[in-house]
Amino acid sequence: MSRFNLKLIASILGLLLVISGVGMLLSLPFSIYYKESLWPIVSAAAVTIFTGLPLWLLLNKSASRELKKRDGYLVVTLGWVVMSLFGTLPYLFSGAIPNFTDAFFETMSGFTTTGASILNDIESLPKGILLWRSLTQWIGGMGIIVLAVAILPILGIGGMQLFIAEAPGISAEKLKPRIKDTAKRLWLLYVGLTFMETVLLMFGDMPFFDALNHSLTTMATGGFSTKNNSITFYDSAYIHYVITLFMFLAGTSFTLTYFLLKRKFKKVLANEEFIVYLIFLIIATLIITGFVHSFTDYSFERNFRDTLFSVVSIVTTTGFVTEDYTSWSPLITMVFFALLFIGGMAGSTAGGIKIVRHIVLFKNSFLEMKRQLHPNAIIPVRLNSRAVQGELTYHVLAFMMIYFLIFSLGSIIMAWVGLDFPTALSSVATSLGNVGPGIGNVSPVNNFSSIPVVGKWVLSFLMLLGRLELFTVLILFTPFFWRRE
Amino acid sequence: MSRFNLKLIASILGLLLVISGVGMLLSLPFSIYYKESLWPIVSAAAVTIFTGLPLWLLLNKSASRELKKRDGYLVVTLGWVVMSLFGTLPYLFSGAIPNFTDAFFETMSGFTTTGASILNDIESLPKGILLWRSLTQWIGGMGIIVLAVAILPILGIGGMQLFIAEAPGISAEKLKPRIKDTAKRLWLLYVGLTFMETVLLMFGDMPFFDALNHSLTTMATGGFSTKNNSITFYDSAYIHYVITLFMFLAGTSFTLTYFLLKRKFKKVLANEEFIVYLIFLIIATLIITGFVHSFTDYSFERNFRDTLFSVVSIVTTTGFVTEDYTSWSPLITMVFFALLFIGGMAGSTAGGIKIVRHIVLFKNSFLEMKRQLHPNAIIPVRLNSRAVQGELTYHVLAFMMIYFLIFSLGSIIMAWVGLDFPTALSSVATSLGNVGPGIGNVSPVNNFSSIPVVGKWVLSFLMLLGRLELFTVLILFTPFFWRRE
Repeated sequence: MSRFNLKLIASILGLLLVISGVGMLLSLPFSIYYKESLWPIVSAAAVTIFTGLPLWLLLNKSASRELKKRDGYLVVTLGWVVMSLFGTLPYLFSGAIPNFTDAFFETMSGFTTTGASILNDIESLPKGILLWRSLTQWIGGMGIIVLAVAILPILGIGGMQLFIAEAPGISAEKLKPRIKDTAKRLWLLYVGLTFMETVLLMFGDMPFFDALNHSLTTMATGGFSTKNNSITFYDSAYIHYVITLFMFLAGTSFTLTYFLLKRKFKKVLANEEFIVYLIFLIIATLIITGFVHSFTDYSFERNFRDTLFSVVSIVTTTGFVTEDYTSWSPLITMVFFALLFIGGMAGSTAGGIKIVRHIVLFKNSFLEMKRQLHPNAIIPVRLNSRAVQGELTYHVLAFMMIYFLIFSLGSIIMAWVGLDFPTALSSVATSLGNVGPGIGNVSPVNNFSSIPVVGKWVLSFLMLLGRLELFTVLILFTPFFWRRE
Repeated sequence: MSRFNLKLIASILGLLLVISGVGMLLSLPFSIYYKESLWPIVSAAAVTIFTGLPLWLLLNKSASRELKKRDGYLVVTLGWVVMSLFGTLPYLFSGAIPNFTDAFFETMSGFTTTGASILNDIESLPKGILLWRSLTQWIGGMGIIVLAVAILPILGIGGMQLFIAEAPGISAEKLKPRIKDTAKRLWLLYVGLTFMETVLLMFGDMPFFDALNHSLTTMATGGFSTKNNSITFYDSAYIHYVITLFMFLAGTSFTLTYFLLKRKFKKVLANEEFIVYLIFLIIATLIITGFVHSFTDYSFERNFRDTLFSVVSIVTTTGFVTEDYTSWSPLITMVFFALLFIGGMAGSTAGGIKIVRHIVLFKNSFLEMKRQLHPNAIIPVRLNSRAVQGELTYHVLAFMMIYFLIFSLGSIIMAWVGLDFPTALSSVATSLGNVGPGIGNVSPVNNFSSIPVVGKWVLSFLMLLGRLELFTVLILFTPFFWRRE
């Protein structure tokens, strides 16, 4: 074990706990304003901070501040787990979620920005707790931006290098300055967009508390709502379109949104993943709207809006709901089941397989036929007009294979714990893809409360796996990870 | 078009029609013995042979006997389509299946050795027609052996080169002698095993006609039965075990069975695919038997036998039934749904993804994690202790991606035509995998008769796609296939 930089790992975990604890304290103003008991949040924050602080201070005793690759895998996975463990405290101490399994599921669903919930009556929870619930997603989304843009590409995870072609020459040695630089620019954008959405929602007469919460969970593509009926609660086209826009932005690479704001439109339009993401959403929405409009009595605008909202919500892995898409028809249900496997852009807060991987895979499959006709020609996959390295294509292909393998095994386990066929398949797909709702008994108008305990733990693990792009977690289960060189 | 050797292609298609027509005539003795009308079969055979004969004779007028790669793709796909078109004639002329869509579905299901049926009352059909039905599978199986062992590897289809490492140095020039050589050895084995099974089944008191039919469709891993209840009809452990054994053999590479008979046991045991195939079947059977035994009142032997039979039947893509596996439990149903994606060994008559591809993919995914820890090391996939070429791994990965893409699109279409969720997914999985039964409304105790017309055509196309390893058919739909060089 000594070849891991344990002191440094512990100190980073400590820092993450301190951040979590401070996050909890952000709920206090709301608890005070709404005259709720402060004790649960204060004590949860205290436990979290006072566990984290001494660990964080270990940093000064750490002989080396060098974080090696293996340390990286360990710290990322442990970070999410430790935060999810301590993140349960506000739920447990307040009695909002008295059961540990449920509390852990809800917290992991938060930090992984999944949005699957076990709560039957969200609106009965204290406001302070609701804010913490939304904050778990927002903090998780913030973590993902660093992870996706700065850490995973360096760890070599599942082809995440693909989308940082914008920043060549990144190496492990440059890790720290790169993180700091990225953090500054992109977190500012993240905070700014959250603020903007809050203001815009308040323009639509959404109360400040709800506007803030929905903005926090939109930007994280999380999907936790403060209302039992999610966005269906708001009978306002304006609110629906505003949230659709921000879900779209949250599913867009933050680096790209940064360029967009800097008016570097050429860079944006040259980004193949963005173009496919945009066109896919448009075409899917138009086709599905056509079907939906053929068998409902609502106006075209209403059907278009509900479809657009649902498609953007599922593809960006947010999971907000304005209309139960499983109530439309078996075809639409099947289509939305398939949409669980798309995912937003890499470098966004969206989970799932992600558009860029689909592009690489689709092109590679098509080119494979060309290769068979011309076996001696070298025909590489091209992305943004540049040839993708063969090894990167491998990464992506391996990622997909593992994704489907885990999906299969997960579905079998969920059938084992007693779920019916569509519920088993979609609960796994939606957890692994960090989406939130599925079909069957985990459709947009249901929740995960009735899933057996074992199932909740399995789904929690799948959320973690999906969020950390599979390899980060799975590599810890291989013998060679722990082997001394 | 002139760069295709059209005359040669037409003459091969003609030959295939003559073979089909002669196959139809093989039903005559049974029609005579059972005193059935000879007219439908004689006229069907006449139309088929007299269409095929003039085409076949074009061969002599063909300037060149050289079959190029592009001709190869075209002739293989067209061959299966043309045979399936003419193969409907006995059904149509006899009125056994008066509807063309149904007749085409049944014939395509035969020639692709799928075994999905639209017949509600199989036993009411004339014996001559039943034999033709079984023969479509047997002829299809024979075609597949040539295709898998001799043609597809040369066309470079989806990694089929992987398993013919036994015969190095095969090139397009050596195509013809290789086909002849393979045909002689392996067809003899195919005929011999069919004969052996017939005799063994008759020992178990199965009447000659049924024994012959079931043997024809076992060796093809087809699964057409002469009984409405498939093998459930025979309440005999002996018959169940004999059919299980021969399904297992039919799912084994015929080259390997040949070595087995030649007592080259070392070669057999050194074959990784065979070992995995064997161990997978054993472990899956034991685990499932354990579950099944925990909630049925039958004896352990009976549960073991039913499970073994079902597992071997689905994995080898045969599709015979002794017990409805969807009646056991949701878990078992999910497991059998997953088994639709396994497939037998390459070089057998089995369809599906096939064991060797799963091995390559599984190893590659595992090694990918190793590669991420050691990015500079070159870590190839090894099969039978030899490194698999990078390009071959690509083939296999591309195959899988296209398989899942087609599975997704197919499922959406089947939901569109009105099937419920499990039926839509499993009808596509079982057609693409050439298995036969699925779950839901296409479970082992149902059939495909109630599927809407559009759905039947889509599934027929999927059977063809799956049988010809996807690429052979799909490449015809690419623009570069038709482009002049």
